[in-house]
Amino acid sequence: MSGKTVRDLKVGDAAQFSKTITEADVVLFAGVTGDLNPAHVDELWAQGSPFRGRIAHGMLTAGLISAVLGMRLPGPGTIYISQELRFLAPVRIGDTVTARVEVEELMEQKNRVRLRTTCLNQDGTKVVDGVAWVMPPR
Amino acid sequence: MSGKTVRDLKVGDAAQFSKTITEADVVLFAGVTGDLNPAHVDELWAQGSPFRGRIAHGMLTAGLISAVLGMRLPGPGTIYISQELRFLAPVRIGDTVTARVEVEELMEQKNRVRLRTTCLNQDGTKVVDGVAWVMPPR
Amino acid sequence: MSGKTVRDLKVGDAAQFSKTITEADVVLFAGVTGDLNPAHVDELWAQGSPFRGRIAHGMLTAGLISAVLGMRLPGPGTIYISQELRFLAPVRIGDTVTARVEVEELMEQKNRVRLRTTCLNQDGTKVVDGVAWVMPPR
Amino acid sequence: MSGKTVRDLKVGDAAQFSKTITEADVVLFAGVTGDLNPAHVDELWAQGSPFRGRIAHGMLTAGLISAVLGMRLPGPGTIYISQELRFLAPVRIGDTVTARVEVEELMEQKNRVRLRTTCLNQDGTKVVDGVAWVMPPR
Repeated sequence: MSGKTVRDLKVGDAAQFSKTITEADVVLFAGVTGDLNPAHVDELWAQGSPFRGRIAHGMLTAGLISAVLGMRLPGPGTIYISQELRFLAPVRIGDTVTARVEVEELMEQKNRVRLRTTCLNQDGTKVVDGVAWVMPPR
Repeated sequence: MSGKTVRDLKVGDAAQFSKTITEADVVLFAGVTGDLNPAHVDELWAQGSPFRGRIAHGMLTAGLISAVLGMRLPGPGTIYISQELRFLAPVRIGDTVTARVEVEELMEQKNRVRLRTTCLNQDGTKVVDGVAWVMPPR
Repeated sequence: MSGKTVRDLKVGDAAQFSKTITEADVVLFAGVTGDLNPAHVDELWAQGSPFRGRIAHGMLTAGLISAVLGMRLPGPGTIYISQELRFLAPVRIGDTVTARVEVEELMEQKNRVRLRTTCLNQDGTKVVDGVAWVMPPR
Repeated sequence: MSGKTVRDLKVGDAAQFSKTITEADVVLFAGVTGDLNPAHVDELWAQGSPFRGRIAHGMLTAGLISAVLGMRLPGPGTIYISQELRFLAPVRIGDTVTARVEVEELMEQKNRVRLRTTCLNQDGTKVVDGVAWVMPPR
């Protein structure tokens, strides 16, 4: 089981993965990371915040990007070098997020690939935007 | 319960959080994000990879940074704007990671704060480096 | 990282932590403790009980008290000696519980601290009351 | 499905439940309760503590007592009134804990039962001792 090499890829190749972000996901993510920020785990507090209710952790959403990179494009064997993330809109419990990655640049000699990474919610609102650099498998 | 405002902060302020990354954390993170990359969940496959064993998801480690930002510095009420992450070394199951954030720049008018975000393992090896921009609570 | 010593504490010092008790919390707590009492995991059975629906485990609520003692007051390094708990009202799925601890007595020679421990729901109803004895870190 | 009534019970009746406390249990308990005390989640910190390694949350062990009361003796329909807990020895990851409850007093008119509640580890060391008051089902 191995993903695509830099020679298998071309600019414009894209892949995606979608998942509904449940309350259980947020509870488990909080425990795993230690991030019990009241914005994520205290509905009463969150009702009084600008988002008017609990929101999912940004890194949970970002985890869906990692899922696409490591499972689909380039896929297994990919080494993550860097990720830039801009958090554009909140993800609420029950939202369905689609993470999409698209190849933007190939550095064949150095075995580096740059991908645009975006996450949309069910309304088409962009919730995360960013750029990933990875080393695809050889 | 509210974190520090931009006026409460000064350059050099720092906070940290440490946690051992267990196999259960990796399993749960995989389920929550859908990232079942064999590098994280298939020990047999991972033995044959350059890392010679399963490694934790980079975004799991990054989640510890989010924990510090949202719980300690600036703390509750902070809005995450962006995060740059460079993955410098693998985190293995059983490693203890310390995420540290340090204020590097304050934009009081725009209510923006830039923080250096680093994660070290138990040997002092830097596993993640990066920069976060946040809006502290008003 | 170390909490307050007996000399740092004074009678009346207090700290708290709040969290919404979700269905996922109850499910996970049931699995971890083996407490699959139908009052917690069988909605049909629970509808016919005096509480008219599933309730959270009392020890889950008590766990929030432990969180405050071990993370905030006195904080890391505290050793739990004893806890008395009176379960005064049910906690339902979706309730937001605030656990509060307050120093009531200091025994500096023996390095013992007695704290009043109370949990309130979002309506201000006291759901748990009790007393903890701990040894703060030296 | 209903437990024993006060008339079904007699002094000396006993029941127990045993469970190995795994690392996953501790991870999940931490997330559910918000108790990320380093004594439970930071192996590096815990190595430097008096217990020389991570220990399970005391309330996790106490949860096994609740399991016996609510599932076996008196069983479903029991209402928890109060619990006293003395934490006598640490429970480590991998320990197998047996929670045992024994009827000590019956107040038939008031429908109250007092039980001795003890938890032993695999070596027979008493890790928790205490007393529960419950209302058995009518």
